Amino acid sequence: MNSTIFRERRTRLHRSIDGAIFLPGLHIAPRNYEKNGYPFRQDSHFLYFVGLSYPGLATLIRPDGTSCLYGTPQTDNDIVWEGKRPTLDALAWAGGLDDVRTMDQLESDIRDLASTGETAHYLPPYRHDILAWESALFQCSVKQIQSGFSTKLAEAVVQQRIQKSDEEVAQIEKAIAVSKQMYDRAFAAVAPGRFEYEIMGAMVGVAESNQASNAFLPIVTRHGEVLHNNRYDHMLKDGDLVLIDTGVELPPYYYGSDITRTVPANGRFSPRQQEVYDIVLDAQLRAIETATPERSNKEVHLAAAHAIVNGLKAMNLMKGDTEEAVQAGAHTLLFPHGIGHMLGLDSHDMEDLGDFVAYPNGKKPAPAPGLQNLRLGRKLEPGFVVTVEPGIYFIPELIDRWRADRKHEAFINFEEVNKFRTFGGIRIEDDIVITDTGSRVLGPPIAKSAAEIQQQMAG
Amino acid sequence: MNSTIFRERRTRLHRSIDGAIFLPGLHIAPRNYEKNGYPFRQDSHFLYFVGLSYPGLATLIRPDGTSCLYGTPQTDNDIVWEGKRPTLDALAWAGGLDDVRTMDQLESDIRDLASTGETAHYLPPYRHDILAWESALFQCSVKQIQSGFSTKLAEAVVQQRIQKSDEEVAQIEKAIAVSKQMYDRAFAAVAPGRFEYEIMGAMVGVAESNQASNAFLPIVTRHGEVLHNNRYDHMLKDGDLVLIDTGVELPPYYYGSDITRTVPANGRFSPRQQEVYDIVLDAQLRAIETATPERSNKEVHLAAAHAIVNGLKAMNLMKGDTEEAVQAGAHTLLFPHGIGHMLGLDSHDMEDLGDFVAYPNGKKPAPAPGLQNLRLGRKLEPGFVVTVEPGIYFIPELIDRWRADRKHEAFINFEEVNKFRTFGGIRIEDDIVITDTGSRVLGPPIAKSAAEIQQQMAG
Repeated sequence: MNSTIFRERRTRLHRSIDGAIFLPGLHIAPRNYEKNGYPFRQDSHFLYFVGLSYPGLATLIRPDGTSCLYGTPQTDNDIVWEGKRPTLDALAWAGGLDDVRTMDQLESDIRDLASTGETAHYLPPYRHDILAWESALFQCSVKQIQSGFSTKLAEAVVQQRIQKSDEEVAQIEKAIAVSKQMYDRAFAAVAPGRFEYEIMGAMVGVAESNQASNAFLPIVTRHGEVLHNNRYDHMLKDGDLVLIDTGVELPPYYYGSDITRTVPANGRFSPRQQEVYDIVLDAQLRAIETATPERSNKEVHLAAAHAIVNGLKAMNLMKGDTEEAVQAGAHTLLFPHGIGHMLGLDSHDMEDLGDFVAYPNGKKPAPAPGLQNLRLGRKLEPGFVVTVEPGIYFIPELIDRWRADRKHEAFINFEEVNKFRTFGGIRIEDDIVITDTGSRVLGPPIAKSAAEIQQQMAG
Repeated sequence: MNSTIFRERRTRLHRSIDGAIFLPGLHIAPRNYEKNGYPFRQDSHFLYFVGLSYPGLATLIRPDGTSCLYGTPQTDNDIVWEGKRPTLDALAWAGGLDDVRTMDQLESDIRDLASTGETAHYLPPYRHDILAWESALFQCSVKQIQSGFSTKLAEAVVQQRIQKSDEEVAQIEKAIAVSKQMYDRAFAAVAPGRFEYEIMGAMVGVAESNQASNAFLPIVTRHGEVLHNNRYDHMLKDGDLVLIDTGVELPPYYYGSDITRTVPANGRFSPRQQEVYDIVLDAQLRAIETATPERSNKEVHLAAAHAIVNGLKAMNLMKGDTEEAVQAGAHTLLFPHGIGHMLGLDSHDMEDLGDFVAYPNGKKPAPAPGLQNLRLGRKLEPGFVVTVEPGIYFIPELIDRWRADRKHEAFINFEEVNKFRTFGGIRIEDDIVITDTGSRVLGPPIAKSAAEIQQQMAG
């Protein structure tokens, strides 16, 4: 990718918007005091349209389509503490911007725009410092900023970012290649007596040793039934399943991976574990098969749900007609989330824009039973990159509640399900790109079948 | 530490303040979209006075001295996604709080306070979301919140947190024990051809494998002359020095370590490198010797500055009278920062409170030459934990500027200094506690002399 790409992206964006566009870059987010920041992560829209991963920048696309980079030149003291950075001119050149102005000129430039009756479109801000900044720039209240974002701009951004180019897909595959190394290390490190944080640390070490950062908080847990478990303080025990859901992103473009594997702590699935594992694997493979252009992500989700219900029926955990069970949402006791989400610069790509990415008209329909947590309602198109991540989880609190409420008891054998209340959870996740004719699993293969995992863990 | 300790800390704080005290806990800071947060770090004051490391809490110490914990009970859906957390009652018990109310009651409780003529003291907020939150709670503008913090509370907090108890020192030493493992790994990993991020990744892997997190962005660089270098993309070359400045903090209390070592990429210091190294080591040892109760941190700093000037004079890089050179600030060409800072729950402990911690009356005097970057002006007292981290850096931009300006040319041999313009930088840092009679270097020893480092790297 080079400056031409960012320029072309901005030109296309500007053509679909009547007027100016303000793209704020992010600042360093303070951790426990102002000067002790979290690792800098640039805003993904800024990365996509401007390509510059430095804090304290902003871009204004003017009504005439030219783009200006705003920033603050380094002082001598900055150079002593931070080292010499590329000049603003050099950054503008790298991002293909037309000119450069200092940050203190931004406010008056936006005021000048307003005086000509123009106003700059902006996206919904998701950080408080950006809210406060835009409130000062546009001279209106924080509430007005929150409600006054440009839906037209949000739609246009989605339109551009939603289909990934070959170069973007290649970047995602580079991230998955690092994930593969991380999982290989994890498979070697998992053993009874090890702590979750030891496995997590080993994986993060591999990531950082490849210049990659976590794209989201890693999940490395013997309690896979907690969907977004971010604790790592348990010791692994013989007989445990370990669910590992991690993703990384790589400079200079910051596209990410998102992979999940579930492995037996002792290296061998028990017959019961393998039975459930094979159902999840079957569901994942069927979902991937179903993911073709023109099919909706809902169809992909339902393919997995069907496979899960059929499998659970064979295990006598569910009963009745599969189609009816899925329609009623009975499977959501054990598969309570959606099949996956868009992946790109963000792990949940463009989730900051809300439902504009998930639904073509930006309006989420009232969800059918079992589809409340489906993150993506669109038809799939070539170039979409999505995750496929079905799972089966035995969540004691949910089992108890449903059982007490006799919820969907026509489809669920609560007596049998209850025997699995300490089973944990299994999820299997890969990233796929929709092709002209179907889909392709991205990145180098990472051990996935029970046999492959056991073989690799046996060393 | 247990609930009694937190209760006693709050009681002491309340006794020194006339009125109510509001202690906000932190929320998860969004990274690239709202639901994708950075790893949660609780506010250090909240950790010190309440002891609870969960997002979304607040504490109000009432005028009568009782303390209330505010939080939001988990929904069933929260439990499915996050897992079951301790109840608010259980958290209040752990922190020794008197009662519990839900977060939506906080605003009216603060309004009720105001109606009785009371107002809650609060500390200066360093995150925008806290600013916005306090602005809503206290019904005043963000600017009013920024200027309206309680200096009395800030002073009282400093008074309590500034002297570390034996238990707190023990926590810092636990963190340093993890640092030792990290440095041992780094000494083994450093080699020509390796990238900085590989070393950093190996160290972070060790940290996370011990359930420890970076307390600040690690510095692992062949460009040690950039004081806060947070890039890791260079390949190490034969003849390079590698400066490594890292610190970690450990649950459940989150006290941190802060250690720096500088090592030769190829495992052997060149004679020239060792000459400079030994000056820095000498300066560090003299500074540690000087750090005793009743001495000021300025004296510690000046002891190091003297040692550095004497050493550089012996190398013919500086000249003239040592005392005069230091008084004039001539050494700041090569030692441009302060000797160290307070260490505790924060790496720069309580830096969010500004000069209240550095200067007893909260007022920073006009700095003498060479002392602009001295972070701590107080006299040392038993129980203070401070870093001792002198360094010598050859910063090309600074050398060129001073040389052009003929700045302090009576004390600097620019011709000779210029020969070192690609030398890089050396810093050596340990953490010490001031004792009744002197000071003690904390934690297990980490290879420090050139001989020790070379021996370990050869091993």
